[in-house]
Amino acid sequence: MKKSAIRGGYIISTPSNVLEDQYLIIEEDKILDITKELPEDIEDIIGGDHDIVMPGLINTHTHAAMSLFRGIADDLPLMIWLNEHIFPAEARFVDEEFVYLGSLLTAWEMVRSGTTAFCDGYFFEDQVVKAAKEIGIRAWVGEGLLDFPTPSIKDPSKAIDTVRSFINRLSNDRLVKPTIFPHSVYTCSPDLLKQAFDLAQEYDLVFQIHLSETDSEVRQIKEKFNMSPVELLDSLGCLSERTLAAHCVALSPDDINVLAKRGVSVSHNAESNMKLASGVAPVPEMLDAGINITIGTDGCASNNNLDMLGEISSVARLHKVIKKDPTVIDENTALSMATINGAKALGFDGGTLRKGAPADVVVLDGDYPNMVPVHHAVSNVVYAASGLNVKHVVIDGQIVVKDSRATTIDEEAMLKEWRRIEKRLKQ
Amino acid sequence: MKKSAIRGGYIISTPSNVLEDQYLIIEEDKILDITKELPEDIEDIIGGDHDIVMPGLINTHTHAAMSLFRGIADDLPLMIWLNEHIFPAEARFVDEEFVYLGSLLTAWEMVRSGTTAFCDGYFFEDQVVKAAKEIGIRAWVGEGLLDFPTPSIKDPSKAIDTVRSFINRLSNDRLVKPTIFPHSVYTCSPDLLKQAFDLAQEYDLVFQIHLSETDSEVRQIKEKFNMSPVELLDSLGCLSERTLAAHCVALSPDDINVLAKRGVSVSHNAESNMKLASGVAPVPEMLDAGINITIGTDGCASNNNLDMLGEISSVARLHKVIKKDPTVIDENTALSMATINGAKALGFDGGTLRKGAPADVVVLDGDYPNMVPVHHAVSNVVYAASGLNVKHVVIDGQIVVKDSRATTIDEEAMLKEWRRIEKRLKQ
Repeated sequence: MKKSAIRGGYIISTPSNVLEDQYLIIEEDKILDITKELPEDIEDIIGGDHDIVMPGLINTHTHAAMSLFRGIADDLPLMIWLNEHIFPAEARFVDEEFVYLGSLLTAWEMVRSGTTAFCDGYFFEDQVVKAAKEIGIRAWVGEGLLDFPTPSIKDPSKAIDTVRSFINRLSNDRLVKPTIFPHSVYTCSPDLLKQAFDLAQEYDLVFQIHLSETDSEVRQIKEKFNMSPVELLDSLGCLSERTLAAHCVALSPDDINVLAKRGVSVSHNAESNMKLASGVAPVPEMLDAGINITIGTDGCASNNNLDMLGEISSVARLHKVIKKDPTVIDENTALSMATINGAKALGFDGGTLRKGAPADVVVLDGDYPNMVPVHHAVSNVVYAASGLNVKHVVIDGQIVVKDSRATTIDEEAMLKEWRRIEKRLKQ
Repeated sequence: MKKSAIRGGYIISTPSNVLEDQYLIIEEDKILDITKELPEDIEDIIGGDHDIVMPGLINTHTHAAMSLFRGIADDLPLMIWLNEHIFPAEARFVDEEFVYLGSLLTAWEMVRSGTTAFCDGYFFEDQVVKAAKEIGIRAWVGEGLLDFPTPSIKDPSKAIDTVRSFINRLSNDRLVKPTIFPHSVYTCSPDLLKQAFDLAQEYDLVFQIHLSETDSEVRQIKEKFNMSPVELLDSLGCLSERTLAAHCVALSPDDINVLAKRGVSVSHNAESNMKLASGVAPVPEMLDAGINITIGTDGCASNNNLDMLGEISSVARLHKVIKKDPTVIDENTALSMATINGAKALGFDGGTLRKGAPADVVVLDGDYPNMVPVHHAVSNVVYAASGLNVKHVVIDGQIVVKDSRATTIDEEAMLKEWRRIEKRLKQ
């Protein structure tokens, strides 16, 4: 079988285990070895003596198609932003072509910036699947379930059946896995939430949901149910190790205990929460409680990029200043969130570079100014790097980015397509 | 005289004045025009139909040579970080060669990420001058004045004379201007501060100082002088329109009023303050008071990069979440801080693209994934861009970065030099 190698000045096996001057050997879709000596039967080598080789980044919460709304509206109060800009734009423009082209743009931006797997929730998810497979990125995809009609599911009473068909179409796909994605406790009835969770259990899937993103969500749910959003989900039996809860900003200490006890994973979306002024998630407290914290960018309309390396840096910095303690969320913790913790939340065997692991590997170009010198490779990744430092990306053993260009699509031709739809959105 | 042009899909003249599909015309060191039609006598054209052309970024607070300490120590309490890592490393390694090579690395990272001018304070500043001129970046440089011996001034009693000679050596330099840089109120006696300010007035120079960076600085000064650091400087007559105060985190409402009344400019160092957990500067309050707020990265040991585009994004996001108000520091305000406000603080005529202004211009590559689509060019600059999107940079009419490579140094040869000194630092 064909073997290839990646040369690294620094190979980050895990954040606490950095190997210097080694080769990472890939056979088919797996990591065969990490070794000082280059084996003789290697067919290709990428990477270089000063490059940093690291596990692919895992973005656990996004709405891929929304990259086409990047910068459409900023710096506005949340409800004006949503009701006067995002919802009308979605009602007007979101169709199959929009979701396909937006998701392809997102998948391109993700691989170009070192993300090798993402968890998506939006509409027309068959198109997200198509885009992800075209780029060659791993994706966990969820068709949005809501009480009311969506762009893709006009009749809410057929939502569960629609999702069941979607799941069946994806059975045994190599790169793309279905998830169940009820939007939130304020847009889904208890009955819909229960049905959704039952479906996740039936097919053994990730159950992803927006949870306690803002104080106003918590107020609204408490008024209606006399419970916090976390307590409501718990009362419905929707919290378990398969639950991936996005945002989790407005949590009480009791909420944190419940999430920890149920083994829920959290997708922390720091930059989106900052930009929308939603608040700061109590990440240090959740870590202390033993919760598996992962990192997501959220959609591009509220971020406005998909750069996980920038996101890691924001996570590590934000909580230090909030706690006035520079030891909070050290660099190893921050990088773990974006790799091994993300893998755990998705039930995926990746997130580290080790023998037998899936070959999802990112190479950062060591010849960029911001990567010199290297006193600690993990520090440079967490605090100095940008996604644009990414030189090569391997997913499932396939080189999807080489010399900072996607190998799987015609970038120039696609730029014309994205600009065509940009013109339409501006009309 | 030779004329050249920069093509832009979007030319950001000022944040509130974006021109579409134009050419920016440069003659010698000045902007001659911004025009729809390309004049006939143009010799060179750079840029492209989808690129964003913007004013060069101005970094108003850094310690350039410290890039060689990037990642040397992170995630530590401030006093352990300083006393056990930074000060010993400085005592051991900081000499003329270190400052030259560190400053050259910094100047390279800066121009590659769109910074066209910076304000520096450190030791052996003749070496910073040498590095800045070699790269071709504008620099405002200040030799550190302290009560005790520094790596470059062994006898504190000779500090003022040493700085006077430094100023005289720099008279009439085109790109590099001297400043006066007493380190802080906790490392400089009132007498030294007064002498320093007199010198700044004598030569009509910027007076830069660290001010109220932490609560502990404020406590220490109040114990000693029964005044806040701001009040102490004001009592010494050191606050005026020539004063550029870095950090300004721990300010009282009275302090803010004093800074505003005296016309002081502030260098806001958000990412460094976050990483060191110093606190969040009251920037919205300072803006309300009418203070000229600029942006600095601080040194690389506490940031750990010099990417002003990343810094702008952090500034815009941080204050929104702190104030729980997404309208705080909108994108135009954030970009103004890093351009026109920085220019004002340094007494420099740049910071905007307009007829007759200095030709300090940055071109962002519109073909990167994170720059597509362009609903609002300023939004993409502030919230989506990274310094690594920078394709071309012109400073004083000279192309110093072309196709993301510095034109003024041999990058490969210099990487060998920086790695040579990296090895020495690790011994």
